[in-house]
Amino acid sequence: MSNLRFSVNGESNSTTQFVAKARHFKLVVDEPEELGGADEAANPVEYILAGLAGCINVVGHLVAKELGFVISKLNIDISGEINPDKLLGISNHERAGFQSIQINLNPETEADIVTLSQWLKIVEDRCPVKDNLRNETPVRLSVEKVYS
Amino acid sequence: MSNLRFSVNGESNSTTQFVAKARHFKLVVDEPEELGGADEAANPVEYILAGLAGCINVVGHLVAKELGFVISKLNIDISGEINPDKLLGISNHERAGFQSIQINLNPETEADIVTLSQWLKIVEDRCPVKDNLRNETPVRLSVEKVYS
Repeated sequence: MSNLRFSVNGESNSTTQFVAKARHFKLVVDEPEELGGADEAANPVEYILAGLAGCINVVGHLVAKELGFVISKLNIDISGEINPDKLLGISNHERAGFQSIQINLNPETEADIVTLSQWLKIVEDRCPVKDNLRNETPVRLSVEKVYS
Repeated sequence: MSNLRFSVNGESNSTTQFVAKARHFKLVVDEPEELGGADEAANPVEYILAGLAGCINVVGHLVAKELGFVISKLNIDISGEINPDKLLGISNHERAGFQSIQINLNPETEADIVTLSQWLKIVEDRCPVKDNLRNETPVRLSVEKVYS
């Protein structure tokens, strides 16, 4: 198939709040008060974890169907730790982002655990968001000044 | 500073819709109709782009303050392309996720373009989400069957 293009655009509402549009959807990002925000929405890294969970859900149901079983409900827990020193400009000893991400999947299904282990390997391999987090992805930034 | 832990948990509402909770925020992820969903929310990869934009906004204002200028408004456009063949199990020729991500920043500010170029390099370096996408991040998955 040919490539699919996805895009988001938006603008800052404050130093921590960003209002993004993805097609006809509005996505508001903020920071909790302890990180200087107004805590009016989930923060950027929570968006990443939610996107990863949503991606695993889609691929999980797709692969289950291919393997011949149904998942009636899929619970997903995702977590990760970040050291804020680099973000805050305090030091460069730690990386800026998540040091690692842990995901636990709890499917309600008639499939046995051997089948579920096989399923998990395929889901991991085919999940777009997991690929972008696990492996390197070129990210190109440019800046153009706006004269108001 | 010590590490900050972030987590999201939730469950599937359909084969494409996932309802996640991040602290007291509800984040709904879905797919457009052409990808088999009900199109009731942004899709997983749009969440990733929105999280990346939100992160750049936070770090952008922080670094501007350090460099001694103010950004009164920051517009951000982000886009990327995905080939869906691996996700759909059609072929393994292309990677599953975004092949690359392009970000264009349009700040309203009195800073000149030389200062903004310097600003951009620091923002890139310190943005947690950009780090996780640009570089490898360990992602560990486990599965545990739920008996309903």
